[in-house]
Amino acid sequence: MCHYADLKSECFEANLLLPQHKLIDLTFGNVSVGDAARGVFAIKPSGVDYAQMKPDDMVVVSMETGEIVEGKLRPSSDTPTHRRLFQAFAGIRSIAHTHSRNAVAFAQAGRGIPCLGTTHCDYFYGEVPVTRAMTDEEVQTAYEWETGNVIVERFAEIDPREITAVLVKNHGPFVWGPSGAKAVEYALALEIVAEMAMKTLQLNPNAEPVPACLLKKHFFRKHGADCYYGQVR
Amino acid sequence: MCHYADLKSECFEANLLLPQHKLIDLTFGNVSVGDAARGVFAIKPSGVDYAQMKPDDMVVVSMETGEIVEGKLRPSSDTPTHRRLFQAFAGIRSIAHTHSRNAVAFAQAGRGIPCLGTTHCDYFYGEVPVTRAMTDEEVQTAYEWETGNVIVERFAEIDPREITAVLVKNHGPFVWGPSGAKAVEYALALEIVAEMAMKTLQLNPNAEPVPACLLKKHFFRKHGADCYYGQVR
Amino acid sequence: MCHYADLKSECFEANLLLPQHKLIDLTFGNVSVGDAARGVFAIKPSGVDYAQMKPDDMVVVSMETGEIVEGKLRPSSDTPTHRRLFQAFAGIRSIAHTHSRNAVAFAQAGRGIPCLGTTHCDYFYGEVPVTRAMTDEEVQTAYEWETGNVIVERFAEIDPREITAVLVKNHGPFVWGPSGAKAVEYALALEIVAEMAMKTLQLNPNAEPVPACLLKKHFFRKHGADCYYGQVR
Amino acid sequence: MCHYADLKSECFEANLLLPQHKLIDLTFGNVSVGDAARGVFAIKPSGVDYAQMKPDDMVVVSMETGEIVEGKLRPSSDTPTHRRLFQAFAGIRSIAHTHSRNAVAFAQAGRGIPCLGTTHCDYFYGEVPVTRAMTDEEVQTAYEWETGNVIVERFAEIDPREITAVLVKNHGPFVWGPSGAKAVEYALALEIVAEMAMKTLQLNPNAEPVPACLLKKHFFRKHGADCYYGQVR
Repeated sequence: MCHYADLKSECFEANLLLPQHKLIDLTFGNVSVGDAARGVFAIKPSGVDYAQMKPDDMVVVSMETGEIVEGKLRPSSDTPTHRRLFQAFAGIRSIAHTHSRNAVAFAQAGRGIPCLGTTHCDYFYGEVPVTRAMTDEEVQTAYEWETGNVIVERFAEIDPREITAVLVKNHGPFVWGPSGAKAVEYALALEIVAEMAMKTLQLNPNAEPVPACLLKKHFFRKHGADCYYGQVR
Repeated sequence: MCHYADLKSECFEANLLLPQHKLIDLTFGNVSVGDAARGVFAIKPSGVDYAQMKPDDMVVVSMETGEIVEGKLRPSSDTPTHRRLFQAFAGIRSIAHTHSRNAVAFAQAGRGIPCLGTTHCDYFYGEVPVTRAMTDEEVQTAYEWETGNVIVERFAEIDPREITAVLVKNHGPFVWGPSGAKAVEYALALEIVAEMAMKTLQLNPNAEPVPACLLKKHFFRKHGADCYYGQVR
Repeated sequence: MCHYADLKSECFEANLLLPQHKLIDLTFGNVSVGDAARGVFAIKPSGVDYAQMKPDDMVVVSMETGEIVEGKLRPSSDTPTHRRLFQAFAGIRSIAHTHSRNAVAFAQAGRGIPCLGTTHCDYFYGEVPVTRAMTDEEVQTAYEWETGNVIVERFAEIDPREITAVLVKNHGPFVWGPSGAKAVEYALALEIVAEMAMKTLQLNPNAEPVPACLLKKHFFRKHGADCYYGQVR
Repeated sequence: MCHYADLKSECFEANLLLPQHKLIDLTFGNVSVGDAARGVFAIKPSGVDYAQMKPDDMVVVSMETGEIVEGKLRPSSDTPTHRRLFQAFAGIRSIAHTHSRNAVAFAQAGRGIPCLGTTHCDYFYGEVPVTRAMTDEEVQTAYEWETGNVIVERFAEIDPREITAVLVKNHGPFVWGPSGAKAVEYALALEIVAEMAMKTLQLNPNAEPVPACLLKKHFFRKHGADCYYGQVR
């Protein structure tokens, strides 16, 4: 009677990568994996210890209504944020949310992560933006859903296929990609470039973003039709 | 003839969590677990190596008089501080004391840890305060007992159920919770938010605390009657 | 039909040292090992996971033409940079490229790593220099080859046997040595002195480089005909 | 024909603690263990990999003349520094030298490690001093012996039983204690307080040393005739 074993398995495996890469502490953080064709996504249950979690604990939720389609546990409290992003950013398959420490520092400082070098260019096509602060009304009503909305608002003029991460102000990063494993890889890359950026700004508070030309070279060396990094598949 | 095997066992397990979470180095740090009904608490023995320690090494002390009720070893030299807190903060069951490095840095700098993001809000309902410096007289007389007193003084207008941690100036954190495991979890959360706060202040020395509304939302999402984080128990 | 088993084996072993020393994350970084007599070098394949890699996956490339001499996979996208360095710096046998975080921070800040202490002197005979920014034309044409050229240009008046590392601006370090293992050891030493230098500059923004006399003493205690560090071989 | 098996064994074990505590990288660092009655000390051989080292590789050296009394390998190049300290600081039994990163940062910055909190007080009775820069003549003649001399000069008015560590300017820490294990423990404590001090100064550049009264309380709680920390032995 389990119709979403594949989705739950990918979601489970991706969630386990979070503590392996030290991207989360305690029970913070979660990964979801969606299937637009079936109109659902699987997500980590709320507040469950990573060491105890089983694939079947993943909760399957309707992308349209948010109702639980399969699963016995409560889904992550951040589920409405994931749902909002799946609706708004067509084509993303997985979302990872962490409280990784350097990325959180930028979110708490209210600063985007500037693109200061090729490590950044290899993953994100420009500065990783930070959202505006949420209003009291947004916080008091449908908080987690509105968290999704401030992200969508921030991406009004940004292509979510080119910048696959955002910092929610005073909170932390949400990152997306074409699979559970890739979303977590991008979350790890984000934490690495955040640490590098912080140290760069310590050495040179006026460090300039890389020239557009270098950004373009590196990003499209790894992404899109003309990429030449890695092996032919 | 061992009347407190349960208390000693919980206390022993909680103490072992300190090196596991890298909250302590060498023999610094200790956890106590109290039982208000029986008027006693168990605490780590003084200066004993974590690797050698056995459950039966825990020392059981009277909450009222400080006398050893059960145990062959000397209790932690910080025992009077724990005893003072058990007396003053009714309802706390366990206290963890660490020298975790980022929290100590705030204590040594004489600064509280400001509440700069939701990771903090999830655990502590506002800034984690720092005590005033102790007077020479306090240091020279009953030093460890007076350490408890400056904490109690600092909490004159703070509810110890909402802010479950304090920084003793020039020393380090004391953290409390409803069980040995929870007290250590909160000590770990404190170290994490201290690291995030330090990095945030490096990126933005004028970073503002989160709005009251967001703090309330996150804290009460996890604590109290209306919480909706985690699973129904 | 494998003519370069020795080279591929040394290259493979040296590449595995990168994750062991935590010098790389994800699939960043690569090591090459050259043989001037045979006019070739072996290098890591592009974008292959370190955990999956086998010695026979190493790609053997002509130093003169850049053509693949042996191997089924694409070589690292940084291959032309390595090739340029093998041509220009006679006598180097192995090159390691990493994105180690503290060295990258200096590269992104556009600052060389000043020689502030004896740990640095033991490995590098003076400041580790940073290249100039590359022009748009250099980036848009033969980017990786031109990366080699800006390094060579920076070493116009530096002896690559005395300073065995460079920071490519907005990118990261390239390091070389007499064997695969030594190139990686020097890359590790570079990351260590970068971390020490960053922390030194935090404590004292005006910290001065060590006197010439001390630099000479330490470097030649370990390198060259009059060295007296280590065992007689 | 081995007369110093005990000394070599203690020295070997203490040296192995350095990488275990992550106090050294590569082959930096060394520990010696002395026996004043027999007028000798055992020390690590020069440039030998910690993973390959055997107890019998330790080199036994005369305290008075510096001649090798027992052992087939070259002693550490820092041997004359150790010898100078054994001569000058009567009563110390073991010396540890590391390049631990935070302590080195203070040495490179030319700053002593101020006593900012009780973690420091528990180990060192006041600021850990930094030496003056060495003169060209000192460096060019008997460099390692003169390194010992600048340390001794710095301690003209400091009791080496109360401050058991020093930072050699532009170099790093030397630490001593009553046994090989204790010397390494103090070297670890030094690295910890250096990290805490650096972070404290980042949060508050004007942080004040602890009051004399608190320093006295903590240091003598752990050291000397009136100590009450740990177990009665």
